[in-house]
Amino acid sequence: MPELRSWFAQQLGAERDDVLITPGGQGALSSVLRALAPAGSPVLVAVPCYPGAIALLRSAGLVPVPVPTDADGVRPELLERAFATTGARALYVQPTYANPDGQVLAPERRRPLLECAAAAGAFVVEDDYARWLGHGASAPPSLLRDDTEGRVITVNSLTKVAASSLRIGCVVARGPVLQRIAGLRMVDDLFVARPLQETAVEFVTGSGWSAHLRTLSTALRERTAALRTALARHLPQCSYLPPKGGFSLWLQLPRGSDGDEVTARALAEGVTVGSGRHHATAEDDTAHLRLVVSAIEAHHVDEAVQRLARAVG
Amino acid sequence: MPELRSWFAQQLGAERDDVLITPGGQGALSSVLRALAPAGSPVLVAVPCYPGAIALLRSAGLVPVPVPTDADGVRPELLERAFATTGARALYVQPTYANPDGQVLAPERRRPLLECAAAAGAFVVEDDYARWLGHGASAPPSLLRDDTEGRVITVNSLTKVAASSLRIGCVVARGPVLQRIAGLRMVDDLFVARPLQETAVEFVTGSGWSAHLRTLSTALRERTAALRTALARHLPQCSYLPPKGGFSLWLQLPRGSDGDEVTARALAEGVTVGSGRHHATAEDDTAHLRLVVSAIEAHHVDEAVQRLARAVG
Repeated sequence: MPELRSWFAQQLGAERDDVLITPGGQGALSSVLRALAPAGSPVLVAVPCYPGAIALLRSAGLVPVPVPTDADGVRPELLERAFATTGARALYVQPTYANPDGQVLAPERRRPLLECAAAAGAFVVEDDYARWLGHGASAPPSLLRDDTEGRVITVNSLTKVAASSLRIGCVVARGPVLQRIAGLRMVDDLFVARPLQETAVEFVTGSGWSAHLRTLSTALRERTAALRTALARHLPQCSYLPPKGGFSLWLQLPRGSDGDEVTARALAEGVTVGSGRHHATAEDDTAHLRLVVSAIEAHHVDEAVQRLARAVG
Repeated sequence: MPELRSWFAQQLGAERDDVLITPGGQGALSSVLRALAPAGSPVLVAVPCYPGAIALLRSAGLVPVPVPTDADGVRPELLERAFATTGARALYVQPTYANPDGQVLAPERRRPLLECAAAAGAFVVEDDYARWLGHGASAPPSLLRDDTEGRVITVNSLTKVAASSLRIGCVVARGPVLQRIAGLRMVDDLFVARPLQETAVEFVTGSGWSAHLRTLSTALRERTAALRTALARHLPQCSYLPPKGGFSLWLQLPRGSDGDEVTARALAEGVTVGSGRHHATAEDDTAHLRLVVSAIEAHHVDEAVQRLARAVG
């Protein structure tokens, strides 16, 4: 639907004709990553990473190569080295409120990131899944804004901001790679059901959208604040980077902890957390947990963290 | 949705737990064919073939190998030879009302087909897209009924019988291959939007479904009869196999005709037909047209075929 493409274009600072509607962000990423790299190729991924991206890379026979991040996002000097040593022609990043740690690519790193990619002749896949999940401040612009070469391919999604069962997302790409992705989208599933597109247009252009965004932002801020308070009280031995947005927090467990074991013990205490292992590309990062506030109200957070503390031991 | 999986299972003679809901038939085929064969592998396809299958095989780096059909479907002796010479581990067929020629795999060929596949250790992908598009008689059962080994993987779809923008289909598979396909469906797009599944359940279990099927069947029968009458009158030099179901007819053009050229001339006459080239895996079959009756009412058919006859020349 042209209206939906226009809306995404306007949100991301793109042209309508460069927008493809997809079945959620996962459907977009699947087509994009397979369109960019033939089986067997390395693809750089900023870690900790969204597990769905790692899984789809592996299922397509692509080889995820981790590039570490810090509180300012992916580290350019490590990125440069990873491109040089692997010959990768694609990078997967979440510059805005990364899943799982909620960090943002710092403004001063945007240009170095694009320069590294340009030097490597690589595409940058920007997974912009959390654009509307800030905790009050506005999200930084899409990397598309800084890209004059058609190097950035941006994936967006309404899944997190609207409803997981809406399954509406998009890809923005420019030039020949757009045609390649569009071709793969066709053979993958032809097009996205029109009733869903109509529902999405009605929702995002409706009078309730702005209020919904404010409510969401407030809830995420309050729940994250409650989580940080509870962590300080019950798990002072665990460190983390304060999330700048999104709905998850990446908790570093005490040295020697096993995220899988803690996750199992937490479940026995009635608390569901995510083991860090799923966000890593290798076995080297098992001492983290992903704590998610989207399904817990603020007044339950303290009790949940108390129970988690028993599981951490 | 369990109700939708149960309904498909009942229609196809399968177990509910062996059914996966997919975004239409194309979405199902894409995951199934990529799950079965690594890039570079040959996949046998009964020809003439659905173009979407050829396109997705090529985009996945798979190599479609044509196996000819006749009025009784794919020819077992050619199938056996194709398996032997290529080492293919998968076969793609439309046993019921094949697209484009509307033929049915004959009852006496079902067992030889499965035996050839068994001898080759191959999976059979049954694209059962036209189950409800008979012209009055009931459709033959799915190949699943004759399969005791989990060798047949059946793809079905409501696209043709309900609405193209509903985007609901399914895969039926048994044993370990079901898990492989389910895993790929997850990374491809997680799951099909629930509102669409609810709509589909309401439609196929509603009181109007049977009447809809009768109306559809009558329309397809009447339009196909009108097409055959008009072809006898205006294009007696063109032969074809009378369709046993479905909405298309595969017209053999006079020797030396070029389907692309005829298609262009027909368009200039105001008639849209499909060039046979899209249904072939090589350049060797350009002297066919696909004539589709789903978008033309019976009383317009004679005029359309008159114009087509001018294009054929």
